[in-house]
Parts: sequence; C-alpha cells; structure tokens
Amino acid sequence: MKNSPTFAVIGGGSWATALVKILCENVDQLHWYMRSVYAVEHLKREEHNPNYLSSVEFNLDQLLLTTDINEAVSQADWLIFAVPSAFLQKELDKLTVSLEGKVIFSAIKGIVPESGLIVGEHFHRNYDIPLENIGVITGPCHAEEVALERLSYLTIASFDEDKAKLFGEHIKSNYIKVKISDDIVGTEYAAMLKNIYSIAAGIAHGLGYGDNFQSVLMSNAIREMKRYIKKMYKMKRNINDSAYLGDLLVTGYSTFSRNRMFGNMIGKGYTVKSAQMEMSMVAEGYYAAKSAYDLNQTKGKKAAKTPIINAVYSILYENKNPKKIFKKLTEKLD
Amino acid sequence: MKNSPTFAVIGGGSWATALVKILCENVDQLHWYMRSVYAVEHLKREEHNPNYLSSVEFNLDQLLLTTDINEAVSQADWLIFAVPSAFLQKELDKLTVSLEGKVIFSAIKGIVPESGLIVGEHFHRNYDIPLENIGVITGPCHAEEVALERLSYLTIASFDEDKAKLFGEHIKSNYIKVKISDDIVGTEYAAMLKNIYSIAAGIAHGLGYGDNFQSVLMSNAIREMKRYIKKMYKMKRNINDSAYLGDLLVTGYSTFSRNRMFGNMIGKGYTVKSAQMEMSMVAEGYYAAKSAYDLNQTKGKKAAKTPIINAVYSILYENKNPKKIFKKLTEKLD
Repeated sequence: MKNSPTFAVIGGGSWATALVKILCENVDQLHWYMRSVYAVEHLKREEHNPNYLSSVEFNLDQLLLTTDINEAVSQADWLIFAVPSAFLQKELDKLTVSLEGKVIFSAIKGIVPESGLIVGEHFHRNYDIPLENIGVITGPCHAEEVALERLSYLTIASFDEDKAKLFGEHIKSNYIKVKISDDIVGTEYAAMLKNIYSIAAGIAHGLGYGDNFQSVLMSNAIREMKRYIKKMYKMKRNINDSAYLGDLLVTGYSTFSRNRMFGNMIGKGYTVKSAQMEMSMVAEGYYAAKSAYDLNQTKGKKAAKTPIINAVYSILYENKNPKKIFKKLTEKLD
Repeated sequence: MKNSPTFAVIGGGSWATALVKILCENVDQLHWYMRSVYAVEHLKREEHNPNYLSSVEFNLDQLLLTTDINEAVSQADWLIFAVPSAFLQKELDKLTVSLEGKVIFSAIKGIVPESGLIVGEHFHRNYDIPLENIGVITGPCHAEEVALERLSYLTIASFDEDKAKLFGEHIKSNYIKVKISDDIVGTEYAAMLKNIYSIAAGIAHGLGYGDNFQSVLMSNAIREMKRYIKKMYKMKRNINDSAYLGDLLVTGYSTFSRNRMFGNMIGKGYTVKSAQMEMSMVAEGYYAAKSAYDLNQTKGKKAAKTPIINAVYSILYENKNPKKIFKKLTEKLD
C-alpha cells in the first residue's frame, strides 16, 4: 500500500497477534515487539505464536520481530499498543528512545493503574503525545475469530479523523470492516467497562442465575455504561453502536471471555486470590472494577449511578459475599 | 389475595403453562383453557402438562381446566391470551359468549395474520375492547426458566396503569419481578420484532458467521427496532429497557429459541418448507417477518430503514439466496 506509515505492534498476547495478522493483509512489513524470547524464537522457527492463536501462520518476510521495545519504537512511525493495561507502564519504563512524533493507537482495554487514566489520556498527559496523534481500536472482536477470518467490525477512533481513516485503510480486509468514530474517550471507557460487566455476568452465572437474568443484566449494563461515559465525557453518541453495545455483548455473552470465566469462579465460591491463581491470563476487568469505581467516586455527589460496577467492586475489593450482593443488586435492576 | 379478579389463561403452550404457574403463586384458583383434550386429561391425572414444561407440578385444586374456550371466557373477568398469533383468530372464532367487560392481557408475540394488527389493536378494533381494558405481558423470559424458578423480570404494559399494577401484584413472586410500562404499543412491536432478529441471528450462525458478527447484528437490530417502533408509535421510551433490548437479547442469544433454530436451518441450506416441516413448533418470527415488512411498506417513503427485516423477508418470502442476501446485509451494518 502506498504512503504506508511504518507500524509496530507492541505486545505478544492474543489481541496483539490478531492485529499483526490483520495488518499483514495490507502492509509489506511491520515491527512486532514481544517480551518473550521463547515466543520470538518459536515464531522464527515455526511461523506461529506458540502462546496465542497458534493456528495463524505468518509469513516471516513480513515480520520484523524483536524482544527489544526500543528497537520497535525507534524504527516505526505508528505504534499500536496491545499489552494488558496493568503491564503498560512496565513496558514504557523500558523506553530509552523518544516517543516524540509517534502516532499511538491503543488496543488496550483498561485503565493504567499507575495513573488512573485511560490509555490515550495517559500518553497525552505523561508522555506529551499531542491529542491528534492518539487513537483507539475497539471491537466487538474476539481475537480467536480473527484467526478464523470470521467477519468482524472494528471501530477506529481518533481526534484526527484523517489518521483514523488512514489506519482504517490499513486494517480493512475481506474479514474486517471498519467504522470511524470521533469518540476516542467514550470508546476507551466502553472497552474498559465492558470487562467489568462481563465479570458481573460470570458471577451471576456462577451463582445460578439464568439467561433471563443475563439479558436483564446486559440491558441494565448498557444503560449504566451510558450514564458513566456521559459523566466522563459528554458528547453526542449512540450507545447502541457496535463499539459500545456490540463490544459489551461479545464479551458479556462469551463463554471464552477471561473476565466472565473469572466472575464465574467467584460466583461459584472461589476467593479472588484462588480464582486469580487458577487463571493463567489476566482478567482486565479485575483492575478496571477498581479504577472505574474509584474514578466515579471522585465525582462525589455527581457520580454516575452504577449499581453493577459497585456490586462487582464490593465483591472483588471489599470481600463481600457474592450471593448477598447480587441479591441486593437484583432489587436495583429493572 | 383480596380483590383478585378471576383469571383465565388461554393456551396450552410453554408460555401459557409458565403463566399459569406464575399466577398459581398468588391466586387460589384460575381457569385454564387449552385445545387438547389429551393434555387436559393428562394434567388431571399426572398433574403436569404433558407437552410443555412437564417438570412443573400443579396443584389440581387451583386449576379449573377446560377444553371449551367459552367456559373459560364466560367465567373469568381477566383473560390472558397465550396462543401463537397465527392461531389466535381461530380460537376467537369459537367464541359464542361476549368479551364485553373483560380485561384482556396479551402474552402473544406477533401480529394477527388475518388483520395485520398487533394483538391489542386487534382486540380493540375488531372486538370493541376499550383501550383501558387492554394490556400486554412481555419478557425477557424463557418459559423454561420459569419452570426452574430462575429469577426473571416481566414488563406489564397497559393504557390503564391501575390494571397494569393490579396484574403485576398477581404475578410477582420470589422469582418474578415486575416492571410497569405505559408503552403498550411499543412493547408489543418489540416482542414481535425480536423474533425476526432471532431468525436473522440463526441464519447468520447457520451460514458460519461467528460471535463477533452476532454482536454487530444485535447492535444493529436494536437500532433498527428503535426506528421501526418510533415510526409506528412515537413516544418517549428507552429502547435499552428490559422489555425491548432484554427481550431481544434473550431470544437472539438463545440456542433454544425456535426462531433462531428455524433461521439456523435456513442458513444451513434447508428450504423454508423443509425447515418448517422439521420443526414441530411454530416459529413466530416467520409470520412476523411478513407482517412487519408489509406494515413498514405501507408507510411508503416514510418507511423505517430496516435492512435486517428486509433481508429476512426476502429469504423467507422471495426465495432469495441466504448467503448472497447476508453478504449484502453485512455492507449495510456497522
């Protein structure tokens, strides 16, 4: 593709792997940084990521693989961050090269624990990245279905519409459709909040609530999400667009979601610690529940009404009994 | 319960059976009409409906069973209709007694084919039932989960709020929560439309689309439903309330839904006829697709934009190729 920026994908997880595959449909080469030396060596030998989406075969000629984040960052113009939010700062702390002039797209669904900020804001405030150089990629999208090349719709949001469109051009393909949005803040919050609601869905399932309740929970969750996002950044948005409602549904209804699985274990009686130990992957919603709750509390009397987030928070962080908390929650839903 | 009206449930299907169970939690006795002599005799002997929700045991002292609709209608003040919309007129044609003074609640999700009207309107226009005597019961609610006494939320809508509340008092229990609404027209349309979207979800699944697409489909469906209902009856409503979005989700995501199953067979290559023959139950959405499409067309240039309904209609009634129609549909969604 002509006039392509040079891309680097930062991260070695399933979503990072899916994004590399998606970009490989359109660009000749891209940089791919991942922490794991083992994964990179395996990729170079076996042409697939050993840990995630291992069915996806890469053409090694397209991949500039590295375990040195500075190498990827210094050589690329556009950086796509796809590491868990809890590990982002650790990766950024490794940087010795500058981020000046870089365009940064976040594929991260969460708040950076160290700053309490969504990823775009974190880069803007703490790394002086101008707003017009920041963008967001959101689903609804299971990485696993990208591996299968099943039709998926991604939303690209940026303060600079031209950059969003240019990025969109580089990721659309016969299995990826792209929508452009100017709601960079709202889509980031939505991507974070949906993981909390997915934990709630899992807890409900673990406690024995059925599909009727699940649909009521999701119907309340999208209304709660609307209230929450409106408090954080008021603008005209349709909360039923794919980037908000679609993303909530694909996660809240997925039996493969780590967040839902984590919630399910909590509902079935595991402690938070034992559930975390059982799971080898990070449930983003665990961190999001605290960040979202705390951030809302800073609004004082003007805080959004968030019975579902509050319920998840009190179960995960105040050691409250899930059964009792959900019993109370059912009285607040309609 | 004091000041209870006398109730009659009209219908012998799973939803009728669930409603009888729900009412039995609160009333001493009620009339239950069903067509099948066999079912009534089995019920009297074995204390459960042989055909639907057979795990539910009834206390026979509470049931005034009859296979004569005139008996049930003449002896009850409040009639709850829960037969498939396609069979409603056939049942009403049997009536020799008057409906004057009766309060009528519809638990039917569909349009009456003979009149092209939603059920409430049908009773109002063709049977002179005053609007204040008409109400609607909607989900989200799988009857199967009522049998298991899993927490469910029902919405009761009526032009007469007092009647809606009184009915609500008679159905709430430790597993049924009730919400009152004044949107009798909108909730009826929603209950009908969701079955069409459920067929669409089934077709998509049958064609091999995955969960990512399903979430985009549902996100577009709720926006389409909002446009459609607004065209039919404009009033202030939150389309994300349980009676609209919740009801769409419980049906659209259910693998037990007849409508989704029917759509799935179409997607997998069955003809409409062979899919219908394979299924012993009626897929309400099949009739709804035609009614909803035709009704929208009567609005001419002011018709709501309904790409999903149109796609389902053209597959079911114009013998169009599901694969090609859905390929085109994916271009219209976002």
